[in-house]
This record gives sequence, C-alpha cells and structure tokens, in this order.
Amino acid sequence: MSDALQREPRDVRMIGFADRSSVNEAVEWIDRYSRICDAESIALNAAIGRILAEPFVSPTEDPPTDTAITDGYALRSCETVGAGSYNPLPFSMQDYHSALRPFSAALVTSGTPHPMGADAVAPFDLAQAGTDIVHLIGSVARGEGVNAKGQEIRKDTLLIEGLRPLRASDLGLISSFGINQVRVLRRPLVRIILAGRKSSQGYKLADANGLMLRAHVVRDGGAVEICKYGITDRDKLAKWIARPGADLVLVCGRTGVGLDDEAPLALAAVGTLDLHGIAMRPGGSTGMGSAGQIPVILLPGSPLDCLCAYDLFAGRLIRNLSGRGPWLPYRVQQAKVGRKIVSSVGTMEFCQVRLIAGEAIPQGTADSGGLSSVARADGFISIPATLEGYAPGATVNVYTYDSTHEVEGIWK
Amino acid sequence: MSDALQREPRDVRMIGFADRSSVNEAVEWIDRYSRICDAESIALNAAIGRILAEPFVSPTEDPPTDTAITDGYALRSCETVGAGSYNPLPFSMQDYHSALRPFSAALVTSGTPHPMGADAVAPFDLAQAGTDIVHLIGSVARGEGVNAKGQEIRKDTLLIEGLRPLRASDLGLISSFGINQVRVLRRPLVRIILAGRKSSQGYKLADANGLMLRAHVVRDGGAVEICKYGITDRDKLAKWIARPGADLVLVCGRTGVGLDDEAPLALAAVGTLDLHGIAMRPGGSTGMGSAGQIPVILLPGSPLDCLCAYDLFAGRLIRNLSGRGPWLPYRVQQAKVGRKIVSSVGTMEFCQVRLIAGEAIPQGTADSGGLSSVARADGFISIPATLEGYAPGATVNVYTYDSTHEVEGIWK
Repeated sequence: MSDALQREPRDVRMIGFADRSSVNEAVEWIDRYSRICDAESIALNAAIGRILAEPFVSPTEDPPTDTAITDGYALRSCETVGAGSYNPLPFSMQDYHSALRPFSAALVTSGTPHPMGADAVAPFDLAQAGTDIVHLIGSVARGEGVNAKGQEIRKDTLLIEGLRPLRASDLGLISSFGINQVRVLRRPLVRIILAGRKSSQGYKLADANGLMLRAHVVRDGGAVEICKYGITDRDKLAKWIARPGADLVLVCGRTGVGLDDEAPLALAAVGTLDLHGIAMRPGGSTGMGSAGQIPVILLPGSPLDCLCAYDLFAGRLIRNLSGRGPWLPYRVQQAKVGRKIVSSVGTMEFCQVRLIAGEAIPQGTADSGGLSSVARADGFISIPATLEGYAPGATVNVYTYDSTHEVEGIWK
Repeated sequence: MSDALQREPRDVRMIGFADRSSVNEAVEWIDRYSRICDAESIALNAAIGRILAEPFVSPTEDPPTDTAITDGYALRSCETVGAGSYNPLPFSMQDYHSALRPFSAALVTSGTPHPMGADAVAPFDLAQAGTDIVHLIGSVARGEGVNAKGQEIRKDTLLIEGLRPLRASDLGLISSFGINQVRVLRRPLVRIILAGRKSSQGYKLADANGLMLRAHVVRDGGAVEICKYGITDRDKLAKWIARPGADLVLVCGRTGVGLDDEAPLALAAVGTLDLHGIAMRPGGSTGMGSAGQIPVILLPGSPLDCLCAYDLFAGRLIRNLSGRGPWLPYRVQQAKVGRKIVSSVGTMEFCQVRLIAGEAIPQGTADSGGLSSVARADGFISIPATLEGYAPGATVNVYTYDSTHEVEGIWK
C-alpha cells in the first residue's frame, strides 16, 4: 500500500519518525529567528502592554518653575521662625500671581506655580485663616511643600528604559509631557492555518485549536494576520504557507505519520522542512522549517499536543519577535512531587499537576486527559529526557497557569 | 477668607484633615462592597480571561466510541503475540468501517473510530507495509494506541471549576464539545470622572490619570462605562456622580484641602461621604462614600497619589466585583533593603524600589518623583504605620510590576 504513495524526501507517512530531534535542538532552531520586529508609532492610548522601542527621555524639566505640592500658604520660611500656638504670627494675604511682599502669604493649591520670592508652603493646619490676614501657628522649613524647578525631572533624563512593556503608569507619565504618540515594537503578524480533521464526536478539533492559538498569540505579543479553517489538502496548504504577508506561519494538524498527514510535505514543497519529529510528549510530531525566509511551525492537531508545542516553540518565537524575551509566561514555583511520575528515557515529557498543600499531584500521564487535564491542573512540570520520572518527594519546578495569587495582606 | 465659604459638614477645605482613617479601615470599607457581579452569556471566542460563572461539566463522554490515538494498524493484540523482526506475522488489510476479521488489520489515523473487534493500534514502526498484507515485526499490548469509550472524560464530570479566569486551553476544551457560548461574570461598569486641573506645564493631569485608570480598570476585570474629562465644578460633579448606570464611580482630582477641592462636597451633596483623608502616603486625600447604593471613590489628582489609591482601594473593589479576588495583581518577592528608608509613624507609606542584586533600593521618598519614580522602579514596598522606616538589611516584600520573569531553562 505504501508503494502507491508518491514518496518525497522526509516523507514519514506510514513509516514513523526514524530519528527525532531533541527539545534542545528545536529550541535552538527557534532562537535562530530571534530578531525583534521593527518599530512603529502608535497612539499612546492604545499602547498599554506594548514594548517601548526606544528609551523615553524627558523632553522638558519638571516642574518648569517652582511649584506648590501641598495646598496651603506660600511664604518665606525665614519669616515663620518662632511661630507657635502661643505666638501666632500674622501674614498679609496676596494673590500668587505677583511677587511675594514681605510678611505676606499667597493661597496656593497643589500643582500651581509658586509666587516669586516664596520658598515654602505652610499647610492649612499650621494656620488660622482670616479674610485679609492669616496667622501662622507653626514654622515651616525652607523647601517644605514646594517642588523646585526641575526637582522632579531634569531635561534629557532617562525615564523609561527601552524594550520593556509599557505600564499604565508609563502612559500617564508620557502623557503628562503632552505627548500622545509613542514608538513601540511592531507586533509580529502570525498566520494560523488549521488543517485538523473532525474529532470522534464530529466536532472540529480545528475549532478548539483555533480559539486556543488565537488567545495565546495575543498573550505573547503577536497579532493574528489571518486564522484560516479547514485547509486539508497538500496543494492548498502549500499555497497558504507560501503566501507572503506574515512574520510567522503556524500550521495546526496533519503533522503526524498517518496517510493524510500532508502538512510536512506541503511545507517541503514550497520551502524547507528542517525538523520533523521531536523527542517530547505531548507534541512529538511537531515540525519546523521556512518558506521564503519566513519561519513555519507545524503544530500537532491533538489539542494537548498543540498547546504544548505552541508554548515551547511557537510561543517562544512570537515572544522573541515581539521583544518580550523567550521565557514561558508562567510563574515558577517549587513543589514536592506528591505521587510517583513515570516517564520514558529519551523523551522529554510534560505532566499536568495540581498543587495541593505544596505537593505536585500528577493529572494522568503526559498523553492522557487532553485539555481536560490542563483545566484541572494548576500548572505543569517537565521531566528531562535523561530521567525515568520522579519519585515522591522529589523537588520540581511547577510552571503555574494563573499569575495572580493571594499574598499576605499589607494593610495591618 | 474661610468665612466666605459656605461650610458643609466634613468640609475640610483650608482646614486640613482633623483625623484620618487608617488604611485598614479603608480596606474594610471596600470589602463591604464585595458582592460579585451577576452572570451573562457571551460568545466563547470573546471569553479569554473572563471569570467562569458556573462549573463547567462535561455534557457528553469523550471519546464516545473506542478511538485510535496513534496512526497505525488497528488489530487484535492477542494475534500479535510472538511477532518480531525474525518472525514477521502477516495481517490482511481491511477498511476500518467494518468489524475486524480474524488476523486482519485496518489502517487508522489518530482520532478516527476504532473498528469493532480491534483492541490496539500497532504503530507504523512495528510494521512492514504491503498492498494487501501488512507484516507485524513486534507485538502490542491490549489497549495500546486506543482511547476506550469514555476513557478521557465521563459524562457529567467537573471539568472547569467555577469562578476562575478562563484560560486559552479552557476555550479549546469547551469548544471541543461543540459549545460556542459560555456563562461568565458580568464585568463591573466603572465610571471615571476626571476633575483634575492643568499641571504646572499646562498639560492636563487629567489626561495622565485617565489613560492610567482606564488601563488599570481593564486589567482588574472591569469595563469603563464612560471616561469623562474636565468636570470641575461642584454641581456638575454631583450630577455625574449621581447619574445611574455604573457599578462603581471613580472621581479623580479635587479631593484635597484646597479651595477648589469640590469632589468630597459634591459626593456629600448627592450621597454620603463615609471616609475622607487616609493615613497613607501617597494617596492621603482619598475619599469613599456612596450615591444611591453605588460606591464612589474619590482619588487624588496627583498621578502617583492617584495610582496608589487606585491600586489599594478602587482596584481592590473592581477585583472583588469582577470575581478576581481582592489581591494586588503583582507578584511578591522578598528582598533586603539596600538603603535606609525613613517613614512617618502613624502613616502607612509606599516606596518605589529598584531590585538590584536582590536588594531593594528606594527611589526617593513616598511623595517624590511622581510617575517617573514608578517608571524607574521594579516594584514597591509598604511601610506599616507603626514603623519609622527600615534599616539597611531588613527583609521586605516587594510587589513587582512585571509578571513575566526569566526562569531557568527547562530544555536541557
């Protein structure tokens, strides 16, 4: 029956993978595509979480003049010496626009410029207010309640380092200089081609993978160029792989060793298939190559395999391109293995675990449970190819799915 | 001059705060509004990160019939006993739709139903394929390569616990049952009223706070009902506070003790002002109350004060309402204080810090630096009201701003 097939080089259909690449080799392949994207200018109000392309340097000094930072009375600090509850000292009221006269005070509010000649602001609780006269019942030190010209920020000071995600407070800071555009790294455009077949229940696995992949591409800083469902034959796959316009192409499904696993052959037809078959579970049928300088990653169609291969390889590449750095976006937490975990030597395995009282409890084996094992899990562990598994009590790193965690209250 | 003011109860303008609430009292006030929002049905493809309202239970079993999980030959495992490279055993090929005949095998691909009578799938690397006959060169155990009916998921199994954020993999799992709607908690609608004045540079501080608050409301699971700029006088503020339609109203700016600090009086005019003035820095002029059962939080207009009061109080309330839990969405990391930090007894202070070689280096004092101190910082620490500060070497919890961090490679 296999004689009926037209054989291409590296066609593994109905034969199996003769040799598999290690996870490490696959990661090295990914990291060869680590150039970050170019920069673009976007509106500041759309820039939350985007990666700042260049360091942000203060365009002016702040404050540009001496400025009150508390509400109260601007005055000369030296004239308040000796003021107290039993020795209230009178000051004539004037407005803050004109230079301060001797033994006078001007009502100021936080953020207003300081009248010339004043060097401090006395807060209201140190004063007894009257209509034309205010009595000080305490002294203030020089500089109290005042931000001197340039005290907060000198011109040309580095305020935000480049190549980090913009925080909400950064948007506020940039905006406070009257700037409403910002240079950020362009998001890599990711094409998703879903080549999966229907599941045993008649539902399209492609739909499951499509939703999952779209959400993860965005999480990792990419933008979905197009998400194309139901591309199943070799010629159509090849056409969609070769079409220009994306920074990265993901093909999901038809990557295995079955008769209809056309994705590797489609990639080989229009580019190169550099790796196919990786010594890992789930995700062992992952492939990588390129078409017209653009990296192409072949993800398995089974959703758990797809997820695992996405996170390790495709997500890493998107995080590299988007300037986020290659690391998995999961918090790492140490735990003791709560139940024996068996793994095959020669294959890196990933095991979903629950965290119960500091112990990592495996949720089935690497292959079992599909996405429901992920839904039940708090995170996953990796078992290196050199190990047969972990004995109960071994210390492991758990990659946890949720980034917000209860911490001790800071209020008391 | 104060005599010219029409005095309302709790009017602190030009007097100062007679007594301040503790941060703890303010947090208790917030937590009295901890009811989560009601549920709504939304499209599954828009549900990433939303909080699942009810536990998700499997509507069917999976797989519904015995199903191949590897590509290969479906057959009877007992008939492969004794097969080996020196003893290839022949099997007649048939299609997988009909019941398996004795000593026959059917080509299957992962995800296809298993032919009746078969109990295992031999992978391609255990077989020598021919046109009508396949020779097995190894034996397979019963169940190998097969998912039995209901093996992955029984009907009515709890798959996703309620009240947690939906992960990308959850969307895939739900979708794999052919479901495309999901019940999630409604996002609390947050009205943002910006009452700030122009900064000393002529730029509107309101703009800085508006961008910052909008981004944080979304981060904490809320939706911005409306973000209204430039509302400055008492009557207009009162009108915007009292207008129905939001789950929470934030007023930003005009909360202090200056002459134009109308926000507390506007709230008191249409509702109640329960707290005003909190023993904390930055953020000491924060106020809280309600109008028509709706909580209203008055945030200071200075951006760093606004940020701090938002995170501790407004953000906490939004996280409560949205079902995310009250905790600050920052990862906590222990560090040693690298330089003496001075703080006032009686006031809880927040200090921006950089993390350098495991040491927390303060970026100015609680009040200084504005948002640029946040931009330079890796996180912040809190200094309890009972302490005068921290000596170098003291261990503190740092709330870190970035949630993704380099971790040791898992690849080797």
